[in-house]
Amino acid sequence: MSQSALRIGLLGHGTVGRAFEHLLAERAERVAELTGRRPEISGVLTRSSGAFEQILESSDLIVELIGGVEPAHDYVRRSLEAGRDVVTANKQLLSRHGEELWQLARERELALGFEAAVAGVVPVIRVLRESLAGTRIERIHGIVNGTTNFILSEMTRTACSYETALAEAQRLGYAESDPSDDVGGADAAAKMAILARLAFDAPVHIDEVRYEGIEQITPDDIAYARELGLALKLIGTAERLHDGISVRVHPAYLYAAHPLASVGGSFNAVTVEAEAITEITMSGPGAGGPQTASAVLGDVIAAVAPGRPNGAAPMTNPVPLPIVEDVVSAFYLHMEVADRPGVLAQIAQHLGEQGASIKSVVQRGLGDNAQLVMVIHPLLESLLRVATEAIAELDAVHGLPRAIRVIDEEFE
Amino acid sequence: MSQSALRIGLLGHGTVGRAFEHLLAERAERVAELTGRRPEISGVLTRSSGAFEQILESSDLIVELIGGVEPAHDYVRRSLEAGRDVVTANKQLLSRHGEELWQLARERELALGFEAAVAGVVPVIRVLRESLAGTRIERIHGIVNGTTNFILSEMTRTACSYETALAEAQRLGYAESDPSDDVGGADAAAKMAILARLAFDAPVHIDEVRYEGIEQITPDDIAYARELGLALKLIGTAERLHDGISVRVHPAYLYAAHPLASVGGSFNAVTVEAEAITEITMSGPGAGGPQTASAVLGDVIAAVAPGRPNGAAPMTNPVPLPIVEDVVSAFYLHMEVADRPGVLAQIAQHLGEQGASIKSVVQRGLGDNAQLVMVIHPLLESLLRVATEAIAELDAVHGLPRAIRVIDEEFE
Repeated sequence: MSQSALRIGLLGHGTVGRAFEHLLAERAERVAELTGRRPEISGVLTRSSGAFEQILESSDLIVELIGGVEPAHDYVRRSLEAGRDVVTANKQLLSRHGEELWQLARERELALGFEAAVAGVVPVIRVLRESLAGTRIERIHGIVNGTTNFILSEMTRTACSYETALAEAQRLGYAESDPSDDVGGADAAAKMAILARLAFDAPVHIDEVRYEGIEQITPDDIAYARELGLALKLIGTAERLHDGISVRVHPAYLYAAHPLASVGGSFNAVTVEAEAITEITMSGPGAGGPQTASAVLGDVIAAVAPGRPNGAAPMTNPVPLPIVEDVVSAFYLHMEVADRPGVLAQIAQHLGEQGASIKSVVQRGLGDNAQLVMVIHPLLESLLRVATEAIAELDAVHGLPRAIRVIDEEFE
Repeated sequence: MSQSALRIGLLGHGTVGRAFEHLLAERAERVAELTGRRPEISGVLTRSSGAFEQILESSDLIVELIGGVEPAHDYVRRSLEAGRDVVTANKQLLSRHGEELWQLARERELALGFEAAVAGVVPVIRVLRESLAGTRIERIHGIVNGTTNFILSEMTRTACSYETALAEAQRLGYAESDPSDDVGGADAAAKMAILARLAFDAPVHIDEVRYEGIEQITPDDIAYARELGLALKLIGTAERLHDGISVRVHPAYLYAAHPLASVGGSFNAVTVEAEAITEITMSGPGAGGPQTASAVLGDVIAAVAPGRPNGAAPMTNPVPLPIVEDVVSAFYLHMEVADRPGVLAQIAQHLGEQGASIKSVVQRGLGDNAQLVMVIHPLLESLLRVATEAIAELDAVHGLPRAIRVIDEEFE
């Protein structure tokens, strides 16, 4: 059969851009078989060469792999306005300007694929947009940043410090020389904004996502928790509450039976919970040139394959939901205390006044340098803060208790 | 906006059929929002009521939840011939008559959704058909039967016998009163035939899938292997070999680090491996009325949502590949021996003659009732059989060694 060409304009030629070019060449025959069109790269925009207007003119579909907000935003908008299907791996762009771009694509009946923007090759975007389109999703938990998962796995495996694990991640290429977007939680927050948008059909801007990173995590946090059967991960949460939704990223302990507890190294994983499905967990490499390129190629095929001329179904028109700031969590508390009679009673009293009850306690050391580690049953985060500030005032307690959230499946 | 009706004819009214009816009513508004059409059940065929011809006439889309080969085959064929989209959860049907039905759907440009036929709500069909459509898949490992996974998990947890665990599964509704299709491996074989078809674009009939069940598994097999760090599962494998493909189902040991090793209870899980993606693992409930109904509803929406008028892309025209019978596996061997000087040497010699080398050994007991448990590095299954038959002839060995395959990631 005679095949028309599928002219692909490639914006960005870094690790992923080059991997995509390579994969497309390798799989050209298969793409032709699936889409009825012979793929070719009609132009490449790099930092130093290529002109966007010219590439746009000569392309049927634009693949945006530049990253960052501008000029990617300008290029994607203009591509859609010019009637081109677009595939992007850009989480920053979509977590800030997603609604504008999804609306443009919807109005013009164009594909705007973004599987590669979240969790690399883990097909969470397609599963949310298609398999679970009819499902009322209650909650998503995700390990959506491979750098931080590698660092925490390394700290768990070798009992090393955060700094040592970060250096190892940088040496192996899992962390950038400036790792702040990853280790500070901003990268995961952008991805959770996108997942929350899909799960709840509500617009979620990255500025509405609360996030904390892993820079303050100590080897003690990991070692003590292990005794309690807990694994420490940087967890993104998007959940439906009775008065709105909450989207947040923070370090959290998981019990060993949680499907995300065993996800190690630089892998990503996402658990989706809903009454109708119980839960689905998906895991795989979250980054890497070939893996991200593979997700991009899947979107390219979906955009032009016969039987689905506009790729996946258009994104629905979102309905705003209130963002809830103060949520209920279980907590792990780590306190440096003087081991004197009555200390535990005083601490328990301050917790009790805020309605917090203690699930388990471990004490280590003697005299003035004892450590008290406990897990607290779920309560409002604001109440926990009141309790820890009161505890910090006790003579026998040195400094503010370290509080880390616990994902308590028994409660959930 | 004025909405046309989406008239759904429901064939079968058992657990899944009733759950689908319930879910559709609950999510009708959402379905209308996504598809632009108001869903309604236009007719229900039960064992005792309803007429197929009449339901077909009054429906736009047929949902087949009868199960078994006939009359489901006849109904699905006639529905497609009459120009109706079809959604089915029927693995037996597709593993026997899939090619005929997929070709019909392709020729008539109709949707034929079957996500619910394999691994329930775990979206493996959509991920293979869409996300990974452009990927050259090397191997799939799956836990695709919840009954057997529950039984093996229960035997691991409580050290009980196969019979006790089966009775418990029956009591809890995880096993049928006649469990032979599940525990014998035939159910998993049908599902692996479908997954292999999707992974390799080659026709695979259930008769080409070799399978073994779990009826012969003893508490010892689980207890000894645990000491070696191995978990026992009923594993389906579909893999590309240099001279063809192999599709098979058998009990297998997994090392603790394998992503399927921690999948417990009645859950299903599938790991897909390919060079471009490294690996993706998906897990979730493999059965249950609401869960299967949810997968069916996802297919119904995909079949009629705008932007994908024919559901997912049509199944490609398959290209036959040779089925390889004799494959390479690592093995666990369990032998009842008399603990006499030279026994281990004799056994090792018989193994060595077939090119098998020993990875690890554990001996238990003394005198005439000792047990020797070992893990053998990968070799052709036919050669392992020659070795075990020779070992069985030794005076100091009682009976044929028990051989169970080991999925050896280091080798793979």
